[in-house]
Amino acid sequence: MGGGEIVNTGDYEDAYRLGGLIAREGWILLNGGRASGIMEASARGAKKNGGLTIGILPGNDPAWASEYIDIPILTGIGLARNYINVLTSKVVVALPGRTGTISEISLALNIGKKVISLNFDLGPLFKNYNEEKQLIYANKPEEVIDLIKKLLKSDFDKEVGKYV
Amino acid sequence: MGGGEIVNTGDYEDAYRLGGLIAREGWILLNGGRASGIMEASARGAKKNGGLTIGILPGNDPAWASEYIDIPILTGIGLARNYINVLTSKVVVALPGRTGTISEISLALNIGKKVISLNFDLGPLFKNYNEEKQLIYANKPEEVIDLIKKLLKSDFDKEVGKYV
Amino acid sequence: MGGGEIVNTGDYEDAYRLGGLIAREGWILLNGGRASGIMEASARGAKKNGGLTIGILPGNDPAWASEYIDIPILTGIGLARNYINVLTSKVVVALPGRTGTISEISLALNIGKKVISLNFDLGPLFKNYNEEKQLIYANKPEEVIDLIKKLLKSDFDKEVGKYV
Amino acid sequence: MGGGEIVNTGDYEDAYRLGGLIAREGWILLNGGRASGIMEASARGAKKNGGLTIGILPGNDPAWASEYIDIPILTGIGLARNYINVLTSKVVVALPGRTGTISEISLALNIGKKVISLNFDLGPLFKNYNEEKQLIYANKPEEVIDLIKKLLKSDFDKEVGKYV
Repeated sequence: MGGGEIVNTGDYEDAYRLGGLIAREGWILLNGGRASGIMEASARGAKKNGGLTIGILPGNDPAWASEYIDIPILTGIGLARNYINVLTSKVVVALPGRTGTISEISLALNIGKKVISLNFDLGPLFKNYNEEKQLIYANKPEEVIDLIKKLLKSDFDKEVGKYV
Repeated sequence: MGGGEIVNTGDYEDAYRLGGLIAREGWILLNGGRASGIMEASARGAKKNGGLTIGILPGNDPAWASEYIDIPILTGIGLARNYINVLTSKVVVALPGRTGTISEISLALNIGKKVISLNFDLGPLFKNYNEEKQLIYANKPEEVIDLIKKLLKSDFDKEVGKYV
Repeated sequence: MGGGEIVNTGDYEDAYRLGGLIAREGWILLNGGRASGIMEASARGAKKNGGLTIGILPGNDPAWASEYIDIPILTGIGLARNYINVLTSKVVVALPGRTGTISEISLALNIGKKVISLNFDLGPLFKNYNEEKQLIYANKPEEVIDLIKKLLKSDFDKEVGKYV
Repeated sequence: MGGGEIVNTGDYEDAYRLGGLIAREGWILLNGGRASGIMEASARGAKKNGGLTIGILPGNDPAWASEYIDIPILTGIGLARNYINVLTSKVVVALPGRTGTISEISLALNIGKKVISLNFDLGPLFKNYNEEKQLIYANKPEEVIDLIKKLLKSDFDKEVGKYV
């Protein structure tokens, strides 16, 4: 998740690299699908590295989807689609954005998802979630990948633990 | 689209075969994603033939998705997700179902989508749409594939026509 | 519920009279809120008789609401709002319409609501629901009111029955 | 808007008083409708002062609505309903809450609504919105009412300005 508008230039590069790393892991990249900002950068990175990309679009017009989105899901429900974005994601990664991104982070935390924030300082408002390790800060795309692996392994261990 | 409950046994076979044919065309199969009825049958047919399957689920629990769904989209918006199913589909194919399926057919026609009905007689209520060829009846999965090809070609020709 | 476009002139009069009768019972009228067809007629009838009217609008612009709607709920979720219309209604009354109305009838029956159809013949497609008395046909607005009273009394008796 | 869980005891009293003041102005109170926290407190205050209250509920069960809600809108779309809350409100008032409330504030600011925050410090994350006066801080319920009056008057003046 991240801004439709780019907050600073390093963020575009981070999103692009993160998309590429996600693709190389064989994971599916899901984002808001639009042809701008962090969304376009991450999808572009994933496609250049052979990944599969899904975009959950607010509107009903496929022309709004980024060309780097393989599967545009046209919701037609406006910003209410932010809820679908975070429900469907196994792990939510947030890059700098504005209120759209903050609403996604909030909804993700609300429903119990882990959120990794890549160079997006959410400040004192989300301090508790950071202390409880539901919100985790990272500085580099590679660090995000390592964190996701740990989170997925932890989920897998819990699942396996039920049967051992 | 089609019933979570199977109305008669031939329908399961039709859905399974249709799913397989869709996969062999290289098209993506999208349905309601649940592990029952027409949804499961079509996804199973697609997967056995190397296809990619997307399920737009009403709830927020991935355990509700059919095992034959590659990409479960967890909407959490209940039956409001029927609107997303038809918005996202290029062509809607309906197999026999009950009110869930009828709501999807209605919404699809409402937003201008073509609907192919495979052995699901919608009767006088939808007669106008059939006369205007927005609703088309078919008897066999192979016939559905031919109709979809014609519809996609017609869309493509219209698109190309803009530039010629 | 009923068409944004009027199918025949008697329907407008029926909707207007039904709105008035609902208001005189002290019930709240809820519809799709737009300034056209059955929606506008029923809201207008309710307002002329001192009723309270709620409109569940598909868009985000209050200018789309009928002037006879007291409380416009701006959903911004397009036709997905049809699900909210029927979930929120205690009893669904359908007047003649096209696919929007049929989708609402389908969703209402799907979630177990009673549907009273006022001069809107749904034909063989909904025959089972009519036989099981979940779908009830009426010819006059006054008959609809009597049916609603019976349905509400029946619900009330069931509720009271739990404690007796 | 505000937490389902109360963050501190003064907030319950603030919400109750604010609900009462809103009712005395003849305004309609709209909130998330649940029988807890800030939602219940504000609705209770409004009802004790003769107001009309609307609750936009996430689920499909009317039993979840607060007893102080006159009109429960059952959306069945989970937290996606937060978007409807802010779209439908003329002015959004936020009391202390957690991620649900923060998502509503974010969505409200995103779609251009004014947000008045009553003793809920949103910190540096929303600093820009505060500087641009889209987000306004208040300390007392009475102050919120004065701010709403100014905002509504300003909207009214703009509207009238078109015709003068």
